[in-house]
Amino acid sequence: MRNKVTVVGAGNVGATTAQRIHQLGYADVVMVDVVEDLPQGKSLDMLESGPVIGTDALITGSNGYEESANSDVVVITAGIARRPGMSRDDLLLTNMRITTSVTEQVVRHSPNCIIIPVTNPLDAMVQNIYESSGFPRERVFGMAGVLDTARFRTFISQELNVSVEDVQAYVLGGHGDDMVPLVRYTTVGGIPISELMAEEKVEQLVRRTRQGGGEIVQLLKEGSAYYAPSAAITQMVEAVLLDKKRILPACAYLQGEYGINGLCVGVPVKLGAGGMEQVIEIRLTAEEQAALQGSAASVQELVEVMNQARAGA
Amino acid sequence: MRNKVTVVGAGNVGATTAQRIHQLGYADVVMVDVVEDLPQGKSLDMLESGPVIGTDALITGSNGYEESANSDVVVITAGIARRPGMSRDDLLLTNMRITTSVTEQVVRHSPNCIIIPVTNPLDAMVQNIYESSGFPRERVFGMAGVLDTARFRTFISQELNVSVEDVQAYVLGGHGDDMVPLVRYTTVGGIPISELMAEEKVEQLVRRTRQGGGEIVQLLKEGSAYYAPSAAITQMVEAVLLDKKRILPACAYLQGEYGINGLCVGVPVKLGAGGMEQVIEIRLTAEEQAALQGSAASVQELVEVMNQARAGA
Amino acid sequence: MRNKVTVVGAGNVGATTAQRIHQLGYADVVMVDVVEDLPQGKSLDMLESGPVIGTDALITGSNGYEESANSDVVVITAGIARRPGMSRDDLLLTNMRITTSVTEQVVRHSPNCIIIPVTNPLDAMVQNIYESSGFPRERVFGMAGVLDTARFRTFISQELNVSVEDVQAYVLGGHGDDMVPLVRYTTVGGIPISELMAEEKVEQLVRRTRQGGGEIVQLLKEGSAYYAPSAAITQMVEAVLLDKKRILPACAYLQGEYGINGLCVGVPVKLGAGGMEQVIEIRLTAEEQAALQGSAASVQELVEVMNQARAGA
Amino acid sequence: MRNKVTVVGAGNVGATTAQRIHQLGYADVVMVDVVEDLPQGKSLDMLESGPVIGTDALITGSNGYEESANSDVVVITAGIARRPGMSRDDLLLTNMRITTSVTEQVVRHSPNCIIIPVTNPLDAMVQNIYESSGFPRERVFGMAGVLDTARFRTFISQELNVSVEDVQAYVLGGHGDDMVPLVRYTTVGGIPISELMAEEKVEQLVRRTRQGGGEIVQLLKEGSAYYAPSAAITQMVEAVLLDKKRILPACAYLQGEYGINGLCVGVPVKLGAGGMEQVIEIRLTAEEQAALQGSAASVQELVEVMNQARAGA
Repeated sequence: MRNKVTVVGAGNVGATTAQRIHQLGYADVVMVDVVEDLPQGKSLDMLESGPVIGTDALITGSNGYEESANSDVVVITAGIARRPGMSRDDLLLTNMRITTSVTEQVVRHSPNCIIIPVTNPLDAMVQNIYESSGFPRERVFGMAGVLDTARFRTFISQELNVSVEDVQAYVLGGHGDDMVPLVRYTTVGGIPISELMAEEKVEQLVRRTRQGGGEIVQLLKEGSAYYAPSAAITQMVEAVLLDKKRILPACAYLQGEYGINGLCVGVPVKLGAGGMEQVIEIRLTAEEQAALQGSAASVQELVEVMNQARAGA
Repeated sequence: MRNKVTVVGAGNVGATTAQRIHQLGYADVVMVDVVEDLPQGKSLDMLESGPVIGTDALITGSNGYEESANSDVVVITAGIARRPGMSRDDLLLTNMRITTSVTEQVVRHSPNCIIIPVTNPLDAMVQNIYESSGFPRERVFGMAGVLDTARFRTFISQELNVSVEDVQAYVLGGHGDDMVPLVRYTTVGGIPISELMAEEKVEQLVRRTRQGGGEIVQLLKEGSAYYAPSAAITQMVEAVLLDKKRILPACAYLQGEYGINGLCVGVPVKLGAGGMEQVIEIRLTAEEQAALQGSAASVQELVEVMNQARAGA
Repeated sequence: MRNKVTVVGAGNVGATTAQRIHQLGYADVVMVDVVEDLPQGKSLDMLESGPVIGTDALITGSNGYEESANSDVVVITAGIARRPGMSRDDLLLTNMRITTSVTEQVVRHSPNCIIIPVTNPLDAMVQNIYESSGFPRERVFGMAGVLDTARFRTFISQELNVSVEDVQAYVLGGHGDDMVPLVRYTTVGGIPISELMAEEKVEQLVRRTRQGGGEIVQLLKEGSAYYAPSAAITQMVEAVLLDKKRILPACAYLQGEYGINGLCVGVPVKLGAGGMEQVIEIRLTAEEQAALQGSAASVQELVEVMNQARAGA
Repeated sequence: MRNKVTVVGAGNVGATTAQRIHQLGYADVVMVDVVEDLPQGKSLDMLESGPVIGTDALITGSNGYEESANSDVVVITAGIARRPGMSRDDLLLTNMRITTSVTEQVVRHSPNCIIIPVTNPLDAMVQNIYESSGFPRERVFGMAGVLDTARFRTFISQELNVSVEDVQAYVLGGHGDDMVPLVRYTTVGGIPISELMAEEKVEQLVRRTRQGGGEIVQLLKEGSAYYAPSAAITQMVEAVLLDKKRILPACAYLQGEYGINGLCVGVPVKLGAGGMEQVIEIRLTAEEQAALQGSAASVQELVEVMNQARAGA
């Protein structure tokens, strides 16, 4: 009666996600990667930790999708990272091709699964995977907001010297410059942040959150963040497997909500056994609404680049 | 009242160990590495997972030892890996120099800590760190046997399709060819393995365990195992921090036990708040005793190479 | 995708079992009891702990079996305790009637469930529930041995000042005087207990284990043990829900194993998603075999009393 | 390096609290009760669950305070429950005498501990224990608000079918009719409850929360809630032992905060290794402030009854 989760991509994000899900104990994990022996090696290493951490969940590596058949949830981390000299569109189209091909395989082998895309650029990739899958929108939603809020909460917690468990925060929109933090809804122990921190300080922490991914890249020099991202993905997987009905920010395909139609944008949703069971619509200020529209426009732009490339191909 | 643990080395083994200990929640972690920004980057990434995994333990990265001051436990993973063309003695002497220098810093900043060396070649490095530290033997013991038994238990569990929690196994001696598995003491749900598996099969699993590290290296191509090793280290750290009095195999400095004097060799010990509180002496068969002596002889050889290098320096 | 577990009986053993399973987070719990409002009150109290312990599993109380429909596992703790002046047979026949009636309801509402009886006298009640259910023997097995070994391991751990995690022990047969401890298979960190403790001391701990239930009754004065029993039950439930393939002692219906046919007796079994997937047969000494036969004879006696009562009714 | 926690009172609340803290693994527990053998029986039963749940923490029962010496935290649950025909003042004065005597013993044996009173009537008992102890106010604070918010969060979660983890709520003041829920600060996934639920519905859930303890009493018939209360206490103990800096509602001795001086009242505080490290002052509406004053007046009344009784004695 254990669940089955597949993680596509055995790089740092994929492998650390696999490690975290394996450790839960109630789901078997399959790690798929095109690199020969790599997913096998990492998963064997993880399996050998089982007797010490006390889990009997299985974890296996594979270069194909047969072993992933009938997964309940599939996390897609596959894709390349942006390298110096590579244009934004090169990255976009390369990862579009990769995720399209991955999605075909995923859909063939796990026709009833829920897909959680993580590949960047996130919103465009969610859109591409959603469209390629032919799945209802409930079963394709991307991870971004949980990570952004985790960073925002960490910075607030450090600033005020309070438990991370008591900091609540919310973001809408995309990663990076397109992130729309809802400072109004950011609280510490239920108390609005505005009662606890000067506005400038809040702004500073918002800026740091916007650049949170870049801050890690700058420190690591090679590679980007994977510990916090994998924790965020795992929380979304748990929400589905345990039918928790969690209210979390995720990149979902909107059909008129927030005045946006036919685009994947970061909004609060309810996650349960059915996947993205509901888009939560909250009242936005005019400024917030404008910011969210800006975020949607950025996605729209990338979607058009992808559409042209597909048409040209 | 949280404990403090330092991990020296922010490579895969060190960082994954830091991740696991941070996740426990009852110990703050300091990761030290000479590479600029690397420990800072990895620890910031881990810290940002805190709101999601619900831990308020702190984790910080540092290029020096000031931040590690007054640690309760220090895990040393620093050292280089053997590269093609590098002789065994080159590796030995390079890592001797690295761990000697690390130990000096550790002792200066955390004079009452317990040190758990993990650097390879393990037994020789434990010996070097023990001698360099000037600590009583209770406070320096290396991780090797927990990992070896975890692998042996995994293979038995897979072969018999039983829970890893019900497989008990024991190994003495060093890693690799020097490993001395105590098949007599290997049980499944309390039942001797000999009642459940043909002798040949057992031998095959013993061989696979001996080469367990190499199997992972061969698959990963670059780098070696870190998921199971970090789990094994964490179990030893927990045994100390929670004063669990666990009976686990570890590389300890013997003073006459098993007829061995003045050498660090893998034996069963009791781990608690006092560190290595007791060497457990069990009756060995003549064959086992001979194998353990062979293992000790291998350590002795490396110790002599180190002694000559020190004398020559 | 959460599992569903029903606990029949909202007394201390049943309620504490429900509490522990609810806390796991991956199974919803239904507590059934004939006492009006009692299961509702206890389960509401447990549900209200959810926000604090972080579980979204549901727990509900009921006086009927409708809400328990389609449970994966049903634990039966219903029955009366022996009161002063009550004969052994009175207890037996009263609990026979109670468990027969419970079993009918359980089978009707959860025809595919796995039943774990806990009511005393244990072996006879397992026999009665097995026969009343019409289920294959894989789906009916009772809890006794896990509790007995937990007590034995606790006493050994205290005596030797070692971690409970490193003490392995085994018992066969029934509770109390009929318990057959396999001292040969009792180890500490893999080391046979005989190397660590005088035989007399071992015998003393065996005796204390045999009377372990009585020791608690004597201290509590009203009522009997429930903390350790509920932990033992929960471990068996987890083995099934997570398909762990654990090797644990349980009271199973034997069909020729150990030379016993048609009786429920405590033996080592493998527990997984299929329930009692295998009876593990181990070589017994003549003395152990005789003790097991004695244990079976005791069960046989009770079974005959039940058969006569049924025939007379 | 394990912590030490004493729980005074081995009734349902005390014992379930002891069970939960023992299960954490990083704190030893001493349960003290005047009833002969009762704390010994319950703690032995809990200890015997150790091998199954994997904890090596010790738990012991005692009729005196010697074994509790040098505890880090002491939880006081001792006291009688209100019986039919007993006046409110009888209950007050009986429990005053009991907790005064308990406090003397606690202070003598654990002069540096942090005390968490739980005995009812809560605010008056916190006041009495604070005054009897001679401790600074940082080291005496009572449990009430965490339980009330847990209930409020449960009801909201059930009503909206969302995860308990995403419901944040706040209460000030005393238990029962004196409870002051801060509906303004009640959010679901960061979204104000007013956007998600009709005002009447909110009011209804507030009323149910106010009567939350009574609802359980009515169902249980004998006895009152203990599962959710013990979870709430354990969360406060963890906040202290792990120095979490949690922002939680607790009954603290005010010194001018919220315009109240010299009385113990329920307010948001920061809990860490230093105990109640800070009273969090939030802006209240006039109505909220009036309700809090009403709550304080109720406490004042009870304090005066206690003062008269002491003067008369």
